Amino acid sequence: MAVETHQINVDTQGNTHVVDITPLLVEKLNLADISVGIAAIFVVGSTAGVTTVEYEPGLVNHDLKAFFERVASESGHYEHEKMWNDDNGHSHIRASMIGPSLTVPIRDRQPMLGTWQQIVLIDFDTRPRRRSIVVQLIGE
Amino acid sequence: MAVETHQINVDTQGNTHVVDITPLLVEKLNLADISVGIAAIFVVGSTAGVTTVEYEPGLVNHDLKAFFERVASESGHYEHEKMWNDDNGHSHIRASMIGPSLTVPIRDRQPMLGTWQQIVLIDFDTRPRRRSIVVQLIGE
Amino acid sequence: MAVETHQINVDTQGNTHVVDITPLLVEKLNLADISVGIAAIFVVGSTAGVTTVEYEPGLVNHDLKAFFERVASESGHYEHEKMWNDDNGHSHIRASMIGPSLTVPIRDRQPMLGTWQQIVLIDFDTRPRRRSIVVQLIGE
Repeated sequence: MAVETHQINVDTQGNTHVVDITPLLVEKLNLADISVGIAAIFVVGSTAGVTTVEYEPGLVNHDLKAFFERVASESGHYEHEKMWNDDNGHSHIRASMIGPSLTVPIRDRQPMLGTWQQIVLIDFDTRPRRRSIVVQLIGE
Repeated sequence: MAVETHQINVDTQGNTHVVDITPLLVEKLNLADISVGIAAIFVVGSTAGVTTVEYEPGLVNHDLKAFFERVASESGHYEHEKMWNDDNGHSHIRASMIGPSLTVPIRDRQPMLGTWQQIVLIDFDTRPRRRSIVVQLIGE
Repeated sequence: MAVETHQINVDTQGNTHVVDITPLLVEKLNLADISVGIAAIFVVGSTAGVTTVEYEPGLVNHDLKAFFERVASESGHYEHEKMWNDDNGHSHIRASMIGPSLTVPIRDRQPMLGTWQQIVLIDFDTRPRRRSIVVQLIGE
């Protein structure tokens, strides 16, 4: 049994940009000494989240954005924006709702996903960002 | 320290069917060589999620369904449905919101849950499904 | 590789009280034999959740509360409240949405968080509660 810390860096456009990070995870797994266990995926920062979705244009470019706009609208009132005089109150709310962590089982150096299930980073911030995702592999 | 991969299969009715999988997890734990550690629970597929809830009829058969219908309505417009000409856009949104993964601490071969806290699979798809849930046990 | 079980106890005011538990986690990590791995954080009970947020008054005292009130209103109709003749249907829905578990990578005895990212317990119940949070450390 061992622990391995990997880091995935992703450039995003912000504004609820949904990025498929599955190929980047698989790349790390191909280099790892761990072939069975878990990948604890964690995005550093408070305006992004990690989940899974079928990565196809309708969901990724429209339906997810429409959902987040409905439950935490960009144009809503946020006290947070007074603090820093910025415009990303909705980004924080969306990120806390989705959460920064996802734990995926690993077997034969592969994430045990469904065929139409991809691991995504969603960047809710209001500007392009370079994001760091920590992948803590635990297993053997 | 070791890793053990278990699989739980559940037949659901779809349509936000909430299934208590706690007894199925306990069954696996009773057969396991690991008595202390974590159970990383992960549902394979992009139209189901895993969380905890007090498993009683009001919440399970009414309140959760009403909540999901409010935030991601079955009758809403989803671009996803053009892709495959299907009807489960809301299922994907609900699944991404809840997330496919839940990590539960294990002690004395038992999940460390509250008395009124059960682990549930929620199947958001629009038809009955057979679901696979991977339980990656890590511990000693 | 080892497993260590720690417990964090927090007194809350309920009513979507957001508590920063990062210092309490760091305190446990300072006493632990594990310096690299994961902290699997899990709140026991079905009316509280765990996530991360920038811990500043605007988000914590206003924006998060307003969000939860919008998607699962305290004054909504919940069948759950008939079961026990109580008033916390919305608390259960909010808790199931956020989820009870969060897995954070650990390195050099520190959680690998962003500068403005804190780990929070949110207590959705309608009265003050003493909460138990299990921290399962796995690593070396």
